[in-house]
Amino acid sequence: MNVDRILQGTEPSALVSRLGREHVADIVEFLNSKSVEEATEIIAHMPLAWGVEVLDQPPFRNACEVIEALPEDKAAAFLEGMSSDRVADVLRWIEEPKKSALREALPQDVRAAIDHLLTYPENTAGALMTTEFVSVPSDWSVKQTLDHIREVERTRETVYAIFVLHPASRRLTNVVTLRRLIFGGPDDGILTVAQPYAPITVAPNADSEDVARTIRKYDLLAVPVVDTTGHILGIVTVDDVIDSIITEQTEEVQRMGGMEAIDAPYLDIGFFQMIKKRAGWLCVLFLSEMLTTSAMQVFSDELEKAIVLALFIPLVMSSGGNSGSQATSLIIRALALQEVRLRDWWRVAVRELPTGIVLGAILGVIGVIRIAVWQEAGIFDYGEYWKLLAVTIGAALIGIVTFGSMAGSLLPFALKRLGFDPATASAPFIATLVDVTGIVIYFSVAWLFLHGTIL
Amino acid sequence: MNVDRILQGTEPSALVSRLGREHVADIVEFLNSKSVEEATEIIAHMPLAWGVEVLDQPPFRNACEVIEALPEDKAAAFLEGMSSDRVADVLRWIEEPKKSALREALPQDVRAAIDHLLTYPENTAGALMTTEFVSVPSDWSVKQTLDHIREVERTRETVYAIFVLHPASRRLTNVVTLRRLIFGGPDDGILTVAQPYAPITVAPNADSEDVARTIRKYDLLAVPVVDTTGHILGIVTVDDVIDSIITEQTEEVQRMGGMEAIDAPYLDIGFFQMIKKRAGWLCVLFLSEMLTTSAMQVFSDELEKAIVLALFIPLVMSSGGNSGSQATSLIIRALALQEVRLRDWWRVAVRELPTGIVLGAILGVIGVIRIAVWQEAGIFDYGEYWKLLAVTIGAALIGIVTFGSMAGSLLPFALKRLGFDPATASAPFIATLVDVTGIVIYFSVAWLFLHGTIL
Repeated sequence: MNVDRILQGTEPSALVSRLGREHVADIVEFLNSKSVEEATEIIAHMPLAWGVEVLDQPPFRNACEVIEALPEDKAAAFLEGMSSDRVADVLRWIEEPKKSALREALPQDVRAAIDHLLTYPENTAGALMTTEFVSVPSDWSVKQTLDHIREVERTRETVYAIFVLHPASRRLTNVVTLRRLIFGGPDDGILTVAQPYAPITVAPNADSEDVARTIRKYDLLAVPVVDTTGHILGIVTVDDVIDSIITEQTEEVQRMGGMEAIDAPYLDIGFFQMIKKRAGWLCVLFLSEMLTTSAMQVFSDELEKAIVLALFIPLVMSSGGNSGSQATSLIIRALALQEVRLRDWWRVAVRELPTGIVLGAILGVIGVIRIAVWQEAGIFDYGEYWKLLAVTIGAALIGIVTFGSMAGSLLPFALKRLGFDPATASAPFIATLVDVTGIVIYFSVAWLFLHGTIL
Repeated sequence: MNVDRILQGTEPSALVSRLGREHVADIVEFLNSKSVEEATEIIAHMPLAWGVEVLDQPPFRNACEVIEALPEDKAAAFLEGMSSDRVADVLRWIEEPKKSALREALPQDVRAAIDHLLTYPENTAGALMTTEFVSVPSDWSVKQTLDHIREVERTRETVYAIFVLHPASRRLTNVVTLRRLIFGGPDDGILTVAQPYAPITVAPNADSEDVARTIRKYDLLAVPVVDTTGHILGIVTVDDVIDSIITEQTEEVQRMGGMEAIDAPYLDIGFFQMIKKRAGWLCVLFLSEMLTTSAMQVFSDELEKAIVLALFIPLVMSSGGNSGSQATSLIIRALALQEVRLRDWWRVAVRELPTGIVLGAILGVIGVIRIAVWQEAGIFDYGEYWKLLAVTIGAALIGIVTFGSMAGSLLPFALKRLGFDPATASAPFIATLVDVTGIVIYFSVAWLFLHGTIL
């Protein structure tokens, strides 16, 4: 994997021959560290089959740019060899008129397959699937099937799952795994080694999370994508699913952090694109948070009378935000793993209410102790009514932490119900929501306990 | 998958026969919805091979409890049939003296394999691996290998990767995939169909994230775990890796949300365990956030003179927290995907400085406009020096957002450097850090602009 040392050969052709003994994943890693121009030149010098293998790897980041930069006939030759799901992915990002030109250069059948894949929205089974799978009619023998696999193996993404079709209707009837196939006698019918249960399938519009869940639940190496008439359109393989799980995970964390998801490595994103991805949510949150100023303006008379109340505002409010952020992250994952469904929202609410009260009470006691110690030790003078102030802080903490836990746990349900990703901007969103409500709770509690004394 | 309907048969034996036609994953889902007692009774009525298959599924949550509840001879029979990695996982959680009793009941060779697996710490390749793989000496022919696979297939987790050992030293020399094996002539040597490059391997102490990264990078179905002498100890399969990716993802999100990771579904956790997992970090954050009160006590004279400053404290501070939470979530993922290494911290800092300044300036401009509009429209009177106040808010926002972005991006590096998961409590942690520092920045900026007027 010390591909970097190979760099010493400056001639692309010399470089290519030295790369020859490396694993394709290492070559991709190496090319990812090069500029588009260098990568294009290296790939242009590769034998066709090898260049196809490199371009076929989803982790190769500059595939679109390289295809665009290559001479058109060379690009078309590579595209023809690549797997159809990958070609569709690449073409999706190439601009017109180049896109049409490349499409036209492909043979009729490949073009039809790719046009079909391009009709599925991103992140659906249809867009993730490849059309290169092995299927045989159910009246074939084990030997016929094995011969067929040997013939087409090179051009198929996986041969470990073989899809058995009804000979007349061509509907998917059974699945045979290669590990079971090699048990069959040569002249046995293929159905003698088929799995005993109905094929596990997904619909073309299933989203990538559902596909991942199905593959994970049934420990599959590939899941067939089947239309409503029972015909198999393609397969999604386990490696595509892992890539999509990792991508979703990154997007989830970024959304939770309160920004638009970005689809490139941190150091590769341009400065202005970075600002664009972050400024949007930041401004939305800032505008919402302005409500805290408005709320405080309402209570400015109380503030003027009891300036000591201001000292605890950040402390009390942040505790609500923190408990809300805990509850939110718990529910985001529980929803993602389907441990909890949309209809379970009230079961969650019923749990979070006592949880919030207990957590708030724990913090409340600490807060009261803090004030008492500072007062008695003479570190700070909270005034004549410091005991009432301490009770105010304690009670406000119970109210705000409870509100934070409730709001934090229910926000992901609300976002999901409205059709958003439950992770969207959740932590900062909750903090903002709790800040605004927290001020109202805080001053209301203060009025209750301190009215007639310092208020 | 309408397993629930099967429930109508109340006799466990009748139930078992009705479950017969379901996929094992669906049976597991069904058993997960039952109590330990019910699950135990159903499994006790299953034929041995079938019970083994169910207990072998990692998603089956009550496997330990069921094994504990079964009569000892029955439990031992099931354990003997199960795959060694799963047995080790189950035994790990069973208490003494039951654990030793079950262990003693296993045949010598199985016991040795499991004892060995139990020596590896959780979340390492050694703990994830299974010892049920296919290996053959390199002087075997294709036919010998195929016959061997047919013989052992039932007891192997995967037969899609075949590991070729040196006939004398038994060191791992090559890997053959089943899809290539079926191409070989029966009398060809096994090496004629071997992969052309050195086997991709992991060390037994590699952590599960590294294993996942290797499997993903090289699109493997299984990766061999090899010790320092070059001997293969076991294999980690792609389905185990997917499970471990999903678990890590859940823990990452929960840590980011500022709580200890929990390893059970949300609705299954007991009330007091939930409090325990959340109260710890909540108290730590509360105690840190108390510094905001201390900081504000220092500035209490300024506050008394210019109560108007208090109105903007939540707004200004939360903006720092939000920008910090964006930066943190970006870097957590970039570190997890190894897009950024520990040594790249200064490259990140150099990027976040201008990003923070621009984002702060955008919010600053909005803040200034807000004050001007409210003042001019007569919604609120910020006093004679409102223009200076507006400049103060704008400048403080630039300072605090910049500080938030810098601190947020560098915190994951610091946590990682100290040996923690970079996701640990990051969003609330950053909010707290920025709150405390934000108060100091805010009042310093205020003093700079307002000294001699209202301060």
